[in-house]
Amino acid sequence: MTKTVAEDIGEFYQHYPKVATILTVRAGGRKNAMAVAWHSSISFKPPLYGVSIAPRRYTYQLLLESKEFGINFLPFQRAELVASVGGSGGKEVDKFQKFNIAEEKPLKTNAPILKDAYAAYECRLVDSRTYGDHAWVVGEIVAVHFAKEALTSKGTLDLDRVSPILYLGAELYSTIDKSLVKLLDREFYAKR
Amino acid sequence: MTKTVAEDIGEFYQHYPKVATILTVRAGGRKNAMAVAWHSSISFKPPLYGVSIAPRRYTYQLLLESKEFGINFLPFQRAELVASVGGSGGKEVDKFQKFNIAEEKPLKTNAPILKDAYAAYECRLVDSRTYGDHAWVVGEIVAVHFAKEALTSKGTLDLDRVSPILYLGAELYSTIDKSLVKLLDREFYAKR
Repeated sequence: MTKTVAEDIGEFYQHYPKVATILTVRAGGRKNAMAVAWHSSISFKPPLYGVSIAPRRYTYQLLLESKEFGINFLPFQRAELVASVGGSGGKEVDKFQKFNIAEEKPLKTNAPILKDAYAAYECRLVDSRTYGDHAWVVGEIVAVHFAKEALTSKGTLDLDRVSPILYLGAELYSTIDKSLVKLLDREFYAKR
Repeated sequence: MTKTVAEDIGEFYQHYPKVATILTVRAGGRKNAMAVAWHSSISFKPPLYGVSIAPRRYTYQLLLESKEFGINFLPFQRAELVASVGGSGGKEVDKFQKFNIAEEKPLKTNAPILKDAYAAYECRLVDSRTYGDHAWVVGEIVAVHFAKEALTSKGTLDLDRVSPILYLGAELYSTIDKSLVKLLDREFYAKR
């Protein structure tokens, strides 16, 4: 494809879509939820997960205090909740109460696990490091919650049962196209 | 949703899908391409991008040597190329030649930019840090390449023109559902 090249990077949405998640923390009697799209797995063994958070965030303070966090994956039908959580500050308002967010019991941490999530990770803080205007927060996944019906026998999402929330940037959301899934065996294709 | 909870984390595909990219490096006369699904933007200013690479990889050696890399975003029609690149080692074979990968001129680095990509970032290495079995490699985006027709006026992907490659894990690929895109203004939803 014919491409333009620029040194002015701007908001760089080219790398989207990204799964929109709700990150949760609880420290002492306080808790909070925030919308996070900048995140990735970064190690299999041990299972490590990274999330990018602006250090000015209330969530970041609670996270450093509790040294743990939850990451919740919600179905596309709940995309409005991600927008609601993303648009409000947790210092001023209890988002759990305001948006009627139901919780489940965590297993190994105190991080809130969302009832509406099809999957969630409980993480213990391993490292936090500032890169530019965000902190890169690394946690070890110490427990995984998942709706059995949301996963295939291989452990991947069962798209007939669950549709992830994909964020495109600029307040735009969609989900995956379940009619176009294809299996591409890397060893087969490497030999062609 | 009723969830099961486990301490045995396994391969944890619950957080997928992720955009499948091709990461490129050139050091001296050698170059390589690898498939990368674990990546994220991590700062706006400066624009920083992180990628997770197993340190044993040939690509990682070349990256440390050249201190720069490219990330290429290809359309769903080229998902087979991602599988091909992901299934072969760059020490043994010149993947560019074998898979007939056409290049474009980079602007600020020597990292190969793929002609078939709808967007690509040129990155200069800022940091690399081992977490578990992978290295978390952080680069500053110093140039962005993009097909003008692939983006809307807001800078997000124009899904009528381009379909990103989404990786689900276990060799399964799909793309985004362009018929279900919705705009959810976070300030509006925060007030409901």
